[in-house]
Amino acid sequence: MALIVHKYGGTSMGSTERIRNVAKRVAKWARAGHQMVVVPSAMSGETNRLLGLAKELAPPKASEAVDRELDMLASTGEQASSALLAIALKTEGMESVSYAGWQLPIRTNSAYTKARIESIDDKRVRADLEAGKVVIVTGFQGVDEDGHITTLGRGGSDTSAVAVAAAMKAAECLIYTDVDGVYTTDPRVVPEARRLSTVSFEEMLEMASLGSKVLQIRSVEFAGKYKVPLRVLSSFTPWDIDLAEEAKSGTLITFEEDEQMESAVVSGIAFNRDEAKISILGVPDKPGIAYNILGAVAEANIEVDVIIQNIARDGKTDFSFTVHRNDYARTVDLLKAKVLPELGTDRIEGDTRICKVSIVGIGMRSHVGIAAKMFRALSEEGINIQMISTSEIKTSVVIDEKYMELAVRALHRAFDLDQPAAA
Amino acid sequence: MALIVHKYGGTSMGSTERIRNVAKRVAKWARAGHQMVVVPSAMSGETNRLLGLAKELAPPKASEAVDRELDMLASTGEQASSALLAIALKTEGMESVSYAGWQLPIRTNSAYTKARIESIDDKRVRADLEAGKVVIVTGFQGVDEDGHITTLGRGGSDTSAVAVAAAMKAAECLIYTDVDGVYTTDPRVVPEARRLSTVSFEEMLEMASLGSKVLQIRSVEFAGKYKVPLRVLSSFTPWDIDLAEEAKSGTLITFEEDEQMESAVVSGIAFNRDEAKISILGVPDKPGIAYNILGAVAEANIEVDVIIQNIARDGKTDFSFTVHRNDYARTVDLLKAKVLPELGTDRIEGDTRICKVSIVGIGMRSHVGIAAKMFRALSEEGINIQMISTSEIKTSVVIDEKYMELAVRALHRAFDLDQPAAA
Repeated sequence: MALIVHKYGGTSMGSTERIRNVAKRVAKWARAGHQMVVVPSAMSGETNRLLGLAKELAPPKASEAVDRELDMLASTGEQASSALLAIALKTEGMESVSYAGWQLPIRTNSAYTKARIESIDDKRVRADLEAGKVVIVTGFQGVDEDGHITTLGRGGSDTSAVAVAAAMKAAECLIYTDVDGVYTTDPRVVPEARRLSTVSFEEMLEMASLGSKVLQIRSVEFAGKYKVPLRVLSSFTPWDIDLAEEAKSGTLITFEEDEQMESAVVSGIAFNRDEAKISILGVPDKPGIAYNILGAVAEANIEVDVIIQNIARDGKTDFSFTVHRNDYARTVDLLKAKVLPELGTDRIEGDTRICKVSIVGIGMRSHVGIAAKMFRALSEEGINIQMISTSEIKTSVVIDEKYMELAVRALHRAFDLDQPAAA
Repeated sequence: MALIVHKYGGTSMGSTERIRNVAKRVAKWARAGHQMVVVPSAMSGETNRLLGLAKELAPPKASEAVDRELDMLASTGEQASSALLAIALKTEGMESVSYAGWQLPIRTNSAYTKARIESIDDKRVRADLEAGKVVIVTGFQGVDEDGHITTLGRGGSDTSAVAVAAAMKAAECLIYTDVDGVYTTDPRVVPEARRLSTVSFEEMLEMASLGSKVLQIRSVEFAGKYKVPLRVLSSFTPWDIDLAEEAKSGTLITFEEDEQMESAVVSGIAFNRDEAKISILGVPDKPGIAYNILGAVAEANIEVDVIIQNIARDGKTDFSFTVHRNDYARTVDLLKAKVLPELGTDRIEGDTRICKVSIVGIGMRSHVGIAAKMFRALSEEGINIQMISTSEIKTSVVIDEKYMELAVRALHRAFDLDQPAAA
């Protein structure tokens, strides 16, 4: 018997039929002797419906006061789905009770629409579990110290589930979603893509930030910080499949060093075609240049991803970085108006038709030559590399976007990701 | 400058367009210098939608645990509409803030789905009003002393508004709804029916319980208990009509004896065709008979309206009462099975094709001959009276339902209700 947290996404809660299936699945786990805490998202479409109404009524200018009301509004979606799940569980013969974030409370800071969890009081949950109840905790929301409702931002229910699992020292947090795990790359691009049975927390972080939209990245950070064993699995398997089989399905995100020793050198290929490249040429090579350029960009609330500065020649260097494509034009205008004059150069180049492809693997830390193997595989396909950026467990290249699928498939093959991992 | 409470029903909050109109109206009152507290219902249809989902999932047997979750669920409707109104008010340039029942708190007992308000803490509301904000308080809901969300039952938002007005000693509580006031009778039956500019609290109580479905009866009781001046008016007048004109529109429900002195003898004609009549004949005339009969009916949760027992002849009497038509068959079965054998009679008669017509008026207390005038008017139309029941300010008759419209029109004319009240 263990304490288990289940999290169900909006699609899994998308209709009364699906909520009934969730209830049957949770009841199966509870009957097997587990203490169950369940964190549901709002029914799919509900959050968008509510925020759509708000958008029709909202003033043109955002403000903290409006954000407060958006949180009052959006938090109702999870409260409703949690109550519905509690009702469905009773129909399955399980005692159950649902709690809104403020009822525990799940205490957050006051950053409306993007609050951070500060603490969770688990007294009520523990008492109910001891009394044999399934406890349902609303995802996505909390309450600040003045009693205002807050929400954690899109995908925040993942973070709620991990935070509850951490606070209660749960044996495992299972994230039920509409995919059946984490893959070596997107199966739509590489049909041979394979589901990973385990992936390290660090790899998952790199993959999430690179666009593998399986889990909200903050939930992975949270799981890593508190060492919460996290499993991503499908809510679309029949609810009555064998529990032992279900408990091993999906992808387990691990934190223990010894588990990672078995990891493949490269676990997956991530990619992203939402970026644009900007280069400023002939920049004087002196202290403060990077800050001069990126400080102005950051001030305009534009997020920068890859940043590259090569060694200087003749006291001049070239400075390149990538931004989201939607921010490209604004960034170039900003640089021309404010930054280039100060730098004494007018040479700026950009390209929106690029993509970023990355190999991610915890094994890269201890294996040399991985990056070289990546570059060779791309070269054999005639793909020119425009930028390179590396971290301990990731190597990313920026290439022409027309080669994206070709590059992903070549790398997937080159690192044997279509083969089951060696024992 | 006064403290004013506005309450808007579900139809008035039924779309973003209508919410925008509510915001403009409230902003007009606030700009005129009033401190404004607004209690909105859920958007029309929302409570039914939520409870419909619950019904699909609920176990066959009701329980307190299920009722608790129904309140978690249903209370989200008012939380969402309150947040939307707060957002719309900001667009009108008004500072505003919304509070769920638990945030004040509005403390209730723990009777889920039909809770009663015990106290309201108005500290937050007062502080926000002092800071120049419009304060929006969710209707229909509260929180019990263990922090569980409760709801007040259908129409509970009226009661919330009156309770807030009472707690804050508001100058007036304005109930905006889809009718423009209280009428002498239903204008669909009597086209000459006239809107009453004032009606006494006691008359309103009788009219509400007799089927004038303008206000939830508990809200009227509450208003009477705490002497909250209550006005029913239309939310479908243009939002920008002159405030002084709007403030005098609709119907004011009064509590002061001196205001009532101007009242007409009879203020309105109420009617109801939802009842059925049951008579038990040849009942032994001894103590405890009424309890024997009605105790069994009450135990089966069947509500009884008119009750009549006439004087006995030869030690036997006849006992008659009315129940809701939906309960008629069940009541007769119950009486035959459990009650009649004990009474030593098998003579039971019933009729579902009846209706009840009442004249209501505070002036009846001090005027004799009113009932006689009623009976004469009916007799002149050839209408036979089956049952008569009287209270201080009401006289009701049960007649064949086919004469209902005829009776209502005859009484409306007999008491000069189609004429403006004398000055």
